[in-house]
Amino acid sequence: MKTSPIGIFDSGIGGLTVARQIVKLLPSESIIYLGDTARVPYGPRSKAVITKFAKELTNFLIKCNVKCLVVACNTISATCLDEIRKVSPVPVFGVVEPTIELAIKTTKTNKIGIIGTEGTIKSGTYVRKIHEINPKIEVDSAACPLFVPIAEEGLGAHKATELIAKDYLRDLKKSQIDTLILACTHYPLLSQVIQETMGAKVTLIDSAKPTAEKLKESLEERKLLSDKKAKYEFYVTDAPDRVFKVASRFFGKILNDNLKQVTLPTS
Amino acid sequence: MKTSPIGIFDSGIGGLTVARQIVKLLPSESIIYLGDTARVPYGPRSKAVITKFAKELTNFLIKCNVKCLVVACNTISATCLDEIRKVSPVPVFGVVEPTIELAIKTTKTNKIGIIGTEGTIKSGTYVRKIHEINPKIEVDSAACPLFVPIAEEGLGAHKATELIAKDYLRDLKKSQIDTLILACTHYPLLSQVIQETMGAKVTLIDSAKPTAEKLKESLEERKLLSDKKAKYEFYVTDAPDRVFKVASRFFGKILNDNLKQVTLPTS
Repeated sequence: MKTSPIGIFDSGIGGLTVARQIVKLLPSESIIYLGDTARVPYGPRSKAVITKFAKELTNFLIKCNVKCLVVACNTISATCLDEIRKVSPVPVFGVVEPTIELAIKTTKTNKIGIIGTEGTIKSGTYVRKIHEINPKIEVDSAACPLFVPIAEEGLGAHKATELIAKDYLRDLKKSQIDTLILACTHYPLLSQVIQETMGAKVTLIDSAKPTAEKLKESLEERKLLSDKKAKYEFYVTDAPDRVFKVASRFFGKILNDNLKQVTLPTS
Repeated sequence: MKTSPIGIFDSGIGGLTVARQIVKLLPSESIIYLGDTARVPYGPRSKAVITKFAKELTNFLIKCNVKCLVVACNTISATCLDEIRKVSPVPVFGVVEPTIELAIKTTKTNKIGIIGTEGTIKSGTYVRKIHEINPKIEVDSAACPLFVPIAEEGLGAHKATELIAKDYLRDLKKSQIDTLILACTHYPLLSQVIQETMGAKVTLIDSAKPTAEKLKESLEERKLLSDKKAKYEFYVTDAPDRVFKVASRFFGKILNDNLKQVTLPTS
């Protein structure tokens, strides 16, 4: 069990930002990454469909004998983590809890902002979980639906992105938050324009680092840390050229040699 | 057979622009529309995955006893129309051929431009089909990947869209085309910004009208025109709120009362 791989899945390749942090923090751990590039993005879809797709990804990784599952996707983590836990025989780590714990530690004014996909924001999960820990924290959130396609197109530095960011973040800027959660794995690629729009006083928090740290802590506790040489496997459900191009932007070139396309058994 | 419905399918709800023209031109025809909103967009996906998904949509409509199929999606029409024809027992109409016929009739300078999704442009189908009819026509094309999400977000009039359009259309503008094919069902929603960017001398051609006209002509020839009162059915593979909102932007409110969600049998 100790030497079994960590299973990481995402609606696409954005979760590679989380996988990269896990590899950095836990260099002896083998990982199997699965990205549903044939059906990405999940952000605009309904809870029923996101849950169905997420269970199919879960089943694939369970069959790979992973020792735990990391849901490296904010939309899935916010929408149906409990449903995944119900069908998984191994521990399941989402990105929401570690991220909000870090945000709560970071804020001094007790005013936190959240940006994410429509699915993530509409689920209300981030707000609810923050209030479970500290009901006094003021939380404001905004869906930024175009940020994912903009990040995938590599247009973070485009003047148009600046204008769209200004629109999306206008109300959050007025609300005087001091901490902003980037509740989508793609958004770190746009952190520069988001930081410039929000101003230097706002601290940006993304899910990659706190999720990797929480995972490390938990594997230590459970005595599940590996002592073997790590192996990396990457699976996607569709592999057009753009996936290779965008994936290496997220993870580096090592990935492309180990990327395979698979068809998921649908339920 | 005459009174059977016309089956229309699309990767999402963009194809409703085509369905609307069919309803307008053929008011006695019943239609069944199927949009794969659970897996939209198809534009960035590989040919293999687009073909697999398109066959699943075809099978669903064939089982509804349609008298013909309209592929109201440029990406599918450009990528795998022949494969769909192979599995369909009824006539299959794509959007590519009627659209280029109209463009060829329209151009005076014999210089035509094409804009579409990455899948459509990469397939090279539009260019090839134009050259089959007239090899002397100069054709320039550009993929505009952000136009679909921008149209879905209703941001056609946003200043950012203007800047992105300028970037995408820069080379086409230099190439002095007089006719521009909007080879994606979403793009008519952005026709104003596209027209302003290209200048008044360029004629924009979209697929809806020529496809509906070709269909009418062909049903007349085959003596397949209906003489019964029309019925409309709309199916989608996912129906979050946004689908209703965006669909009524494409088709009008009548649609929402007749919209049902279905799960496709996958192959």
